[in-house]
Amino acid sequence: MTPDPDRFLSDLHTLRSFGAAGVGKGVQRPAYTEADIAARDWLAERMKEAGLAPQFDPMGSLFGLVEGPSLLIGSHSDSQPEGGWLDGALGVIAGLEVARAAKEAGGPPVSCVSFQDEEGRFGVTTGSAAWSGALARDKVDGLVDPQGVTLPEARAAMGDRLGDWIDPARFTGFLEMHIEQGPVLDTSGEAAGVVEAIVGIRDMVISFEGQQNHAGTTPMDLRKDAFQALGAFNSLLNDRLRNVVTPATVWTIGHVSLHPNAHSIVPGRVKFSMQWRDGDPDRLDRMEAIVRETAQEIAGDRGLALEFGPMLGVAPVAMDAGFRGALREAAEETVPGRWREMPSGALHDASNMSRMMPAAMLFVPSIGGISHDFAEDTDEADLVRGLQVLAGAAARIAG
Amino acid sequence: MTPDPDRFLSDLHTLRSFGAAGVGKGVQRPAYTEADIAARDWLAERMKEAGLAPQFDPMGSLFGLVEGPSLLIGSHSDSQPEGGWLDGALGVIAGLEVARAAKEAGGPPVSCVSFQDEEGRFGVTTGSAAWSGALARDKVDGLVDPQGVTLPEARAAMGDRLGDWIDPARFTGFLEMHIEQGPVLDTSGEAAGVVEAIVGIRDMVISFEGQQNHAGTTPMDLRKDAFQALGAFNSLLNDRLRNVVTPATVWTIGHVSLHPNAHSIVPGRVKFSMQWRDGDPDRLDRMEAIVRETAQEIAGDRGLALEFGPMLGVAPVAMDAGFRGALREAAEETVPGRWREMPSGALHDASNMSRMMPAAMLFVPSIGGISHDFAEDTDEADLVRGLQVLAGAAARIAG
Repeated sequence: MTPDPDRFLSDLHTLRSFGAAGVGKGVQRPAYTEADIAARDWLAERMKEAGLAPQFDPMGSLFGLVEGPSLLIGSHSDSQPEGGWLDGALGVIAGLEVARAAKEAGGPPVSCVSFQDEEGRFGVTTGSAAWSGALARDKVDGLVDPQGVTLPEARAAMGDRLGDWIDPARFTGFLEMHIEQGPVLDTSGEAAGVVEAIVGIRDMVISFEGQQNHAGTTPMDLRKDAFQALGAFNSLLNDRLRNVVTPATVWTIGHVSLHPNAHSIVPGRVKFSMQWRDGDPDRLDRMEAIVRETAQEIAGDRGLALEFGPMLGVAPVAMDAGFRGALREAAEETVPGRWREMPSGALHDASNMSRMMPAAMLFVPSIGGISHDFAEDTDEADLVRGLQVLAGAAARIAG
Repeated sequence: MTPDPDRFLSDLHTLRSFGAAGVGKGVQRPAYTEADIAARDWLAERMKEAGLAPQFDPMGSLFGLVEGPSLLIGSHSDSQPEGGWLDGALGVIAGLEVARAAKEAGGPPVSCVSFQDEEGRFGVTTGSAAWSGALARDKVDGLVDPQGVTLPEARAAMGDRLGDWIDPARFTGFLEMHIEQGPVLDTSGEAAGVVEAIVGIRDMVISFEGQQNHAGTTPMDLRKDAFQALGAFNSLLNDRLRNVVTPATVWTIGHVSLHPNAHSIVPGRVKFSMQWRDGDPDRLDRMEAIVRETAQEIAGDRGLALEFGPMLGVAPVAMDAGFRGALREAAEETVPGRWREMPSGALHDASNMSRMMPAAMLFVPSIGGISHDFAEDTDEADLVRGLQVLAGAAARIAG
C-alpha cells in the first residue's frame, strides 16, 4: 500500500475548517459541540468514499470499519477549548489515509477510528476509557462538564447517529500517531519517536505546618517558616532524585499555597503539589519513598508538622513489544538515524486500547514543544514522514 | 520616687475592662471606637487624680502633663481589632505610674501619654506620626480606614475633648516600655531588653518569568521552571546572607504567587515578596545588593526574565545613646545579668518621637512571643520588674 501525502495533507487542512479559531491554524472543537459533530459527519463521508463502513458507538466515537479482523489505527478529532490543528486530528487523518491506501491496495485489512472526548470535557480520554472498561460504563452517564452540563445532555446532540458498542475482538491491535506535545524531537532535530511506554503519574499534595509569626520580631533561628521548609525540601529532593531518575523522568511542584501569604508574616503553613512521572513502576515507587523520606526529614529537623494527601495517579502502560519493533523498523527505513525510542509523558487513547489489544504509538515533532495552544504546529514534511512510518509499521504488522 | 506595683497592676487590669473581648485577657479597642474613647476618659481621670493635667491633642492622643520641662513616658492604649491586653496599654499605665510616683515624690518632672491609633486603623503609628511630622499634618484628614470610614468621621466621636497640638519643646525626651512581641527574651529567660534601634525595613516584589509547559512532556533539562528558580534563589540567598547578617537580622519570603499554579503544568511565572530588616542602613544596603545580584545570577543561568518591583521601606532609627545608658544601668540594678540589648523588629511610637527629642525603649518578655492576639501575655512579675527598670531610668535621666 502507498499512502498519498497530498490527499492526507488536504484532508488534514479540511478537518481544521471545522471549528477554525481564526487565530493561526488553531481550532475550537470540544467533544459534542456543533463543530465536533460536523467534523465527524464529514469524516464519516470520507470513510464511506474509501469503502470503509462508518459506525458511531454509544459514546460517539466514530469507526471506519473493514470486514473481518483488522488493525485499528486512529486517535481523536475533538480538541481542547483552545486547541491546535494537529493534536488528535493528525492521528485520525493518518489512520484514515492508511486504511484508505490499504483498501485501494487490496490489503492488509486496516480500520480507522476517531475517539470521542479524548480531551476530557467529561473526564480523561472518556470515549476510549468507556469502551475499554477503564471507565465503568455505568458511571459514564453521571459525568458532568465544568459548566455543569451532563454527558447525556451533551451527547444528545449526536441524535440517532449513535449505535452499539463495537466488539474489540474484531481488531488485531491498535496504532496511534500523535504530535509529541513536548520539545524532545524538535530540539534534537529528529523526525520520529517510537513510544516505549505511556508514563505513569503519581500526584500528592504535601503540607508543612510550622508557626505563623511576625516577620520583624521573630529571629531566624526561632522560626518555623513553612516556605523555608518547602525550599529546603525542594533542594534536598532534587539532589536525591538525581540518583534514581533517567533523562525521561520528570517531577514538578506546580501548585503552591502559602498561609497567610503576606509580606510581613513568617508563613506558618504551605500546601503544595508534588507530581512525578516515569514509565517504570519500580522507579515511581523508589521516587515515592524518597519524596516521603525527604519531607519527613525536613519536617523533623525543623520541628514542623507534616501531612501527606492521598496518593493519586495512573500506572504506566508499556507499548506492545512486537508493534514497537515494527515501528522501529519502519522508522529506520523512512528516516534512518533520525528517530528515537522515548516515553510519552502525556496520556493518550492508546493507554486504554492496550487493556484490550496490542497497542503502540508513534510521535512526530512539535515545533517549540507547544501543545494545547492555537500556536501548536509541525512541519508538513514531518507530518508526511510520520504517515510513511505509520504505514510501514501497519504493513509489517497486518501485512 | 517609688512606683507602686499593686496600683500599676490594678490600673492595668482596669484598663483591659474597656473593650474586653471575653476571650482570655484579650481586648478590642481600635482607635476612636467607643471602648477606646471610654478608656481614654478613664485615663484622663487617673491623670487628674495624680495631679497631672490631662490634655487631648487634635488627633486624640492624651497627655498627662506636669508644668515646665519634663520627661515624657508612654505608649498607646488603642488595640488591634483582636488585640492583647498589654501591647501599648502596658507602656501607658507604666508611664502613668512613673509620672504619678514622681509627682508624689516631688520630682523629677515626668509627663505621660497615650498616643492615638498606633495600631494603624488609619495608617502607621498615626497619632505620633502626625504630631512629629513624619506624617504631613495636611494629609491626616484624607486618611480612610479599611472599611471606608474617613479619619475625620471617626475622630468626630471624640467631640470637644480635642485640643491644640502640644509643643514638643516642653519635653526633654521620651521613654517607651513595650512587650517585646517576639520570643527572644522569653526564650532566653531574660527579664528586660534595652532597644538599640528600631530596625529599618526593605520590601520588594520580585518576579521570575520562565516558560509555562506541560509537566508530563517537558524534560527537566529543557524546563524554565519559575518555582525552581525561586527555590534556587532562596537557597543561594540564604547562603550568601549568612556572611553579612547579625543574629538580629531577619529576612522573609512571606508571599508567593505561582502562575498558573496547577499540578500538571510547569509554572511559567512566580511573583514573591522579599523583605529584610536590620538596624544598620549599611547592612540593609549590602543585603539589597546581594538580593539583586543573586536574583540576576539565577535568572541569567536559567534563562528566565527577571523583574524587580519598587523598593519600599522605612529607615532604621537608633535610640538615644544617653537614654540607652540609663536603661542599661537601671536594668543591671533591677535584674542583674538578666537583660540584653536588642533591636526592635516592629515599629513603635518611639520611632516618631526620636525625630523630635531623645528617645529610647524598654522591652519586657512576651510569653511564647505571641503578639496581636487575644492570647498575648506576660508574667506579672516581669511587668513589675519592667516598671522598676523604667522608673530607675527615668530617675537617672530626669532626676
